[in-house]
Amino acid sequence: MRDRETLGIKMLRKEYDHIILLAHGSPDPLWKQPFESLYHQVSETYGEGNVSLAYMELTSPSLEDVVAILDAEVRHVAVLPLFLAVGRHLRQDVPAQIESLQREDLRIELLPPIGDDALVKQAMQTVVANHLGKV
Amino acid sequence: MRDRETLGIKMLRKEYDHIILLAHGSPDPLWKQPFESLYHQVSETYGEGNVSLAYMELTSPSLEDVVAILDAEVRHVAVLPLFLAVGRHLRQDVPAQIESLQREDLRIELLPPIGDDALVKQAMQTVVANHLGKV
Repeated sequence: MRDRETLGIKMLRKEYDHIILLAHGSPDPLWKQPFESLYHQVSETYGEGNVSLAYMELTSPSLEDVVAILDAEVRHVAVLPLFLAVGRHLRQDVPAQIESLQREDLRIELLPPIGDDALVKQAMQTVVANHLGKV
Repeated sequence: MRDRETLGIKMLRKEYDHIILLAHGSPDPLWKQPFESLYHQVSETYGEGNVSLAYMELTSPSLEDVVAILDAEVRHVAVLPLFLAVGRHLRQDVPAQIESLQREDLRIELLPPIGDDALVKQAMQTVVANHLGKV
């Protein structure tokens, strides 16, 4: 672990060369600010070449835009939806977008949405608890 | 603190009698599951009478439905949006819904969205980090 840290940038998991954070998109230009903020935090830690931010609709860049400019050496991409729940978008629209971008030399995998992670669920419970009582 | 805990149910913050968790809503019936799960966790801890779950559109109950069946003693309600970012919905639609439900004897306050909380932001960074590297 110490060796990795001396590199300055943490190593990616072996199974992914790149992660794309995928938010919904909005007609409101201010809406994207928290997603950009998350992206900047993560790309500063892991290297800009290892993380991208894309939007499903209404806001650019699209998933297609981001995949088009991936480094030529990237072979396995994970798409992490910045969504709280799975609905039509993550069951149909995003899988269809991903399917159209798969290539023989580029495997793209859709991860469960970030809201599905136990860490985010626990944080949300704590936020509600903070608003309600003294925890 | 110990006295409160012996009551079994933690006390609400003095400024709110009730909190309404407000999610977006979806045509997909499975979409609401994580929000219902959060609601059940929180209402088990704080008491069903102190927490409700409502949806902005497409899924019932609506904010109006929930406000209509609040206990008659409730005077100050907080609405906590289960959203990651603020767009048109939280800048216009939800404030308009809330405005139409305010009464002389019932004050309703819109909180910042849950995704705006530092705890949720930190959890999301950690989830991305977990997917990317070994943290």
